[in-house]
Amino acid sequence: MIPSIEWTKDNKVKMIDQTLLPHELKFLEFDNFRDVATSIKVMNIRGAPAIGVAAAMGMALATIEYKDLPKERFIEKMEDAANTIRNTRPTASNLFWAVNRIWKIIETYPDNPHGLSDLVIEESQIMAQEDINVNKNIGKNGATLLEDGDTVLTHCNAGSLATVQYGTALAPVRAAIEEGKKISVIADETRPRLQGARLTAYECHYDKIPVNVISDTSSGLIMMLGKVNKVIVGTDRVTSDAVFNKIGTYLVALAAKDNNIPFYVAAPTSTLSLDETVEDVTIEQRDSSEVSMVLGKVQIVPDGVECLNYAFDITPFRLVSGIITEDGVFTPEELLKKYKNS
Amino acid sequence: MIPSIEWTKDNKVKMIDQTLLPHELKFLEFDNFRDVATSIKVMNIRGAPAIGVAAAMGMALATIEYKDLPKERFIEKMEDAANTIRNTRPTASNLFWAVNRIWKIIETYPDNPHGLSDLVIEESQIMAQEDINVNKNIGKNGATLLEDGDTVLTHCNAGSLATVQYGTALAPVRAAIEEGKKISVIADETRPRLQGARLTAYECHYDKIPVNVISDTSSGLIMMLGKVNKVIVGTDRVTSDAVFNKIGTYLVALAAKDNNIPFYVAAPTSTLSLDETVEDVTIEQRDSSEVSMVLGKVQIVPDGVECLNYAFDITPFRLVSGIITEDGVFTPEELLKKYKNS
Repeated sequence: MIPSIEWTKDNKVKMIDQTLLPHELKFLEFDNFRDVATSIKVMNIRGAPAIGVAAAMGMALATIEYKDLPKERFIEKMEDAANTIRNTRPTASNLFWAVNRIWKIIETYPDNPHGLSDLVIEESQIMAQEDINVNKNIGKNGATLLEDGDTVLTHCNAGSLATVQYGTALAPVRAAIEEGKKISVIADETRPRLQGARLTAYECHYDKIPVNVISDTSSGLIMMLGKVNKVIVGTDRVTSDAVFNKIGTYLVALAAKDNNIPFYVAAPTSTLSLDETVEDVTIEQRDSSEVSMVLGKVQIVPDGVECLNYAFDITPFRLVSGIITEDGVFTPEELLKKYKNS
Repeated sequence: MIPSIEWTKDNKVKMIDQTLLPHELKFLEFDNFRDVATSIKVMNIRGAPAIGVAAAMGMALATIEYKDLPKERFIEKMEDAANTIRNTRPTASNLFWAVNRIWKIIETYPDNPHGLSDLVIEESQIMAQEDINVNKNIGKNGATLLEDGDTVLTHCNAGSLATVQYGTALAPVRAAIEEGKKISVIADETRPRLQGARLTAYECHYDKIPVNVISDTSSGLIMMLGKVNKVIVGTDRVTSDAVFNKIGTYLVALAAKDNNIPFYVAAPTSTLSLDETVEDVTIEQRDSSEVSMVLGKVQIVPDGVECLNYAFDITPFRLVSGIITEDGVFTPEELLKKYKNS
């Protein structure tokens, strides 16, 4: 398992270029925040936890670059850097969260930019380690749900590549295998951007976890034929009534329900937003061309025909068997009891 | 609306090359059965009704080619032609049905190959016209289900291009529009072969029927958001308990049920196989590369990872609101009452 992002000993940010997967495993190294910002924008790195850490490490690079400036000028430059990073993917709340966490340190130690830089570098590495710890705990908790011989269907990529390391939806699979269970994975290809076919298949294959890919159209039949024991998906946000995750998740949940297959959601508590309901969330609509041009390379829709392209869908709690957090596994009702207004 | 296949005045078979759609509308003309057989094999023409008629017209071309041979030699050569045509897509039952229907004429008039050729040509054209008539009646019956302003979601292509003309699942849409109703279509892209994105979108756009394409992952959300009023799909086979159709149909049916949207199946009576049950049907598994290489052009899955590729899926009767045949619209129970053992 390769970390998707790490801080190197010579103070650089090293990441996998995920746009080249599954064809080539290439690492990028950046020594300034502008290149890190670009890498988030063009999606060399993606996945909410991973880009949060990338943002923090980008801020750390900026403190190194500016640490010899006088205090006022330093703050000015750091504000510019923060804005540059925040503007790369303006809808990614994790990016804002990460930049703000770093900013709190900058506010606390404004009179010593050199020491401050060390603190920010340290904080970005703590954030990376925290992500790994949360994922390992999700893995440990989720592994209790998996039996030797199980096949787990997952949608999109909530694996190691979407986090710093280890993944969320794939964490229980990894943990169960570490415990000696035989587990295999079926990855939905996940149109339109094909993160399942490209990334989940890649990381499983790389780590020798048995994996097959299916078209998104196949999950229902595959379940009906008895080829799936459990479903585990990730999530972008959990409200008090539903799970928001990559488009297609709702169909998978319906098929699981119809075939009496447990449907689990791996959700770090950072994704819980239990004071919101479905009504509070606007589903992002993305460009028609993501559907009509497969990976920007093959046009599959006639000129003049528009595609409707919603990025996420809504899986009501009634279809969810359990939610796996770093603290344990909960039914939706138990989740609300434990975390709401706490 | 363009006929997908027709017999020309100078005794040729003319068809659309569907492998070039949606990029180019090109017609192929063949004056011998070998080229027609190849066209079925490489899927210049596809869709059960359409390839049945192509097979019959191929047989007609063979009678022209061989009509000056002595009787025994003629029969021998016709048997070869029949085998060549039948072997193009050995699982397509329609192909066998069409060749057998022509063969009954050949058996009846073995002593006059010239007159026989005229009869076979005539029969193949009758078969083409029969297909259009059946489809028009499905259209008329299905149009009663559609209201002015409806948006119809369909999966795969059961349109004009899958038949000689007019289509099955799209026939009610065409008929309702002819009656003056405003109807629009949402086409599932239909992975892996993308018949929805390529063909349904093409023929709707060509005939000025408003159409949008969605990724297969989106149908559930699109229904939840209230953007679909009715679902109509085609079918390859209806058994006494389920509808067999392109992979992905079952997921669409589940989403329709969950959102209280009627789910209809357009089924010419030739597709009814009511003495069979789900247990009698083996689902065709096709090559992994159909999933891993989009349209043979872009590899989306890492080397070494296999894709599971089932061509059809199973939609249980409990998810079906109505079945539209050339005789009327029936619930599954009514369908069994009317057609079983009749």
